[in-house]
Amino acid sequence: MSEEFLKVARAAREAAAELAPLPRAPKDRALRAVADALVAHAAGIVTANAEDVERARAQGTSEAMIDRLRLDEDRIGKIADAVREVADLPDPVGEVVRGGTLPNGLELRQLRVPLGVIGIIYEGRPNVTVDAAALCLKSGNAVLLRGSSSAYSSNTALVRVMQEALAGTEVPAGAVQLVPGQTRDSVKELMRARGLVDVLIPRGGASLINSVVEESTVPVIETGVGNCHVYVDAEADLDLAVRILVNAKAQRPSVCNAAETFLVHRDVADAFVPKALRALAEAGVTVHGDAAIAAYDAAVVPATEDDFAAEYLSLDIAAAVVGSLEEAVAHIRRYGSAHTDAIVTRSQRAARRFVALVDSAAVAVNASTRFTDGGEFGFGAEIGISTQKLHARGPMGLPELTSTKWVYTGEGHLRTSEGTVVAG
Amino acid sequence: MSEEFLKVARAAREAAAELAPLPRAPKDRALRAVADALVAHAAGIVTANAEDVERARAQGTSEAMIDRLRLDEDRIGKIADAVREVADLPDPVGEVVRGGTLPNGLELRQLRVPLGVIGIIYEGRPNVTVDAAALCLKSGNAVLLRGSSSAYSSNTALVRVMQEALAGTEVPAGAVQLVPGQTRDSVKELMRARGLVDVLIPRGGASLINSVVEESTVPVIETGVGNCHVYVDAEADLDLAVRILVNAKAQRPSVCNAAETFLVHRDVADAFVPKALRALAEAGVTVHGDAAIAAYDAAVVPATEDDFAAEYLSLDIAAAVVGSLEEAVAHIRRYGSAHTDAIVTRSQRAARRFVALVDSAAVAVNASTRFTDGGEFGFGAEIGISTQKLHARGPMGLPELTSTKWVYTGEGHLRTSEGTVVAG
Repeated sequence: MSEEFLKVARAAREAAAELAPLPRAPKDRALRAVADALVAHAAGIVTANAEDVERARAQGTSEAMIDRLRLDEDRIGKIADAVREVADLPDPVGEVVRGGTLPNGLELRQLRVPLGVIGIIYEGRPNVTVDAAALCLKSGNAVLLRGSSSAYSSNTALVRVMQEALAGTEVPAGAVQLVPGQTRDSVKELMRARGLVDVLIPRGGASLINSVVEESTVPVIETGVGNCHVYVDAEADLDLAVRILVNAKAQRPSVCNAAETFLVHRDVADAFVPKALRALAEAGVTVHGDAAIAAYDAAVVPATEDDFAAEYLSLDIAAAVVGSLEEAVAHIRRYGSAHTDAIVTRSQRAARRFVALVDSAAVAVNASTRFTDGGEFGFGAEIGISTQKLHARGPMGLPELTSTKWVYTGEGHLRTSEGTVVAG
Repeated sequence: MSEEFLKVARAAREAAAELAPLPRAPKDRALRAVADALVAHAAGIVTANAEDVERARAQGTSEAMIDRLRLDEDRIGKIADAVREVADLPDPVGEVVRGGTLPNGLELRQLRVPLGVIGIIYEGRPNVTVDAAALCLKSGNAVLLRGSSSAYSSNTALVRVMQEALAGTEVPAGAVQLVPGQTRDSVKELMRARGLVDVLIPRGGASLINSVVEESTVPVIETGVGNCHVYVDAEADLDLAVRILVNAKAQRPSVCNAAETFLVHRDVADAFVPKALRALAEAGVTVHGDAAIAAYDAAVVPATEDDFAAEYLSLDIAAAVVGSLEEAVAHIRRYGSAHTDAIVTRSQRAARRFVALVDSAAVAVNASTRFTDGGEFGFGAEIGISTQKLHARGPMGLPELTSTKWVYTGEGHLRTSEGTVVAG
């Protein structure tokens, strides 16, 4: 590991130990100081951001991507507001998750504690730099940020402003660190930093996430790959199904909770598919269907295995006719990413069965897949959506950035082969 | 991966899908059938076990180890009783962890669901084969067992009896699988079985656990390495401290929650150390002390760095004098394994500070470290003690063998840029 990396990682580790026992008030004061500093230093941040924008333009980046990268005073104001909203959220640290007095009189409590040092590897917009840092600080964690190299100047400026703001508070400035360097090596260093980093959260495309999962010796929380399904049951309200399907696909196709495949029970295919194809076409969606779907409309593109496995993140959707609810479940198990899968049905029995059989982070009944979101779930904020089963599953809010600690208190409790003896 | 391994892993995966939606009653019936079958087939199991015992004896294994390996009808009866106790425990699956109705009317629930397929890599006694299988089945999981090669004949017989018993129940027989082969290759196959195995739980010594953590692409829950400390504060009741220390060290030195180091505040060292050394010597304990401790008694062995890092699991203990509670905490952070650390003090303030600063799975106040145990905590059973921060920390009972699933139910809920619209 490079000296540069070790330096920031060790600084984060030390800061984490200092930050962990802090109660809510000093953390909230620090977050408000960060928000104020972002606004006060907006001009400098915009200047740094202009370097990233210029570089991106020189590299021929699309205007849409450049717009995602661009910061102005208005956007920085919104980023600062988001930090203040995090300050307003309840502190998960110290919450008693379980507890009681054991039969032998030991008082036992399981408390939420910070994870320690969280590494975030992310692509895309520089606002994530501040959002992720705010959520980590609020939950008592230090953070090592490894953003996109395309936003390196912006991220450097944002982290500097945050560190300077923290220096005047009870939260150690070292709790927010940008991983130095813009090459893949710095990602590798994060992935090998077992003992210095407690968890890595990769946020980005499937290839980033898979490479982190494969190579990291630091525990990883996988996020965000969403191959979501809408299953239209034999007993669905078909008009409702069309509206849910179009909403799930087209309301915001670039996000992980957008639908990427619909499945329809063959008993209602004749009634449903033509309606659905019409509505999807009106919404600008291209349908990649199996032979049964393609038979309804020449505009349907024949689907391959790859289509069913795809996370399009675009105005495309795969489609197939299935013989039963169980066949729909088998298709979802085979091709899905266990993010969010929906059933549209009037049948209580079908809904219950689908919920029981689909093994995904979220299952929606008569609702759009788009609701799988920390904001919609009322978490107030979200660091990502976990598609793995360990630690956290689905939208992750502040409690998902914590671990727990057992505390037991006695008055000289000893364990003997005949049971507890109290020596006191 | 070998065809043999793939066959059992796929069988477990299929069984997991079938087992996951089962409610409690059929799982309990299956566990009772397993218990009955173990008793009914005890003679055959003892015969298979005799092969392992004979092989161990031929290899010059110590009689103590051979005793750990040996099964007789009485021990098999106890193993069966433990399975019945697991059947009596509440089922964690289906528990609503959080839930409510969102402002837009969506009904949101977070339910406990099985993890899927759990791989257990373990050393030592064949009773673990049955215990681990029972806990996995009860929590709706399939299990891939990779026990010690020294118990291969016993484990093969035990798994066969369990599978045959399950074949007559609603729980699929494939839910319990022994990983074929006795070489390290079969451990490697488990560690690379991402997508087939949801989590690996290694149970054994530090070297086994470290190699699994380093090499596994399947998520791992680390268990069991315990370098536990007893810190005797300046305001401790010293007689109480001696009794807690001796209990923590000597009551059962071979287990992970036994103390391996004691630290004493210098203000009470003169009063405490001679008493402690006398009591430890009476209990047969060798003390490996720093210079300050060694100055009290010629019988103290000078401690090296390795002593402070050691998990002795024997009648040995490291010892040091510290200048403050903070110095004790720094020692624990540096050398400890974040399992269980205890403070003995009369001071409420010192207790509170120690609990806040020590970042371990369990912190004990005026109690022996030996209480960190699923049985003592009232879990009814324990699959191991996690010393990591993700997913589970400390003793792991049935809920720790589950993940969660979010379920939301609407009546045509769509997400729009202006908020929720209900299409129904």
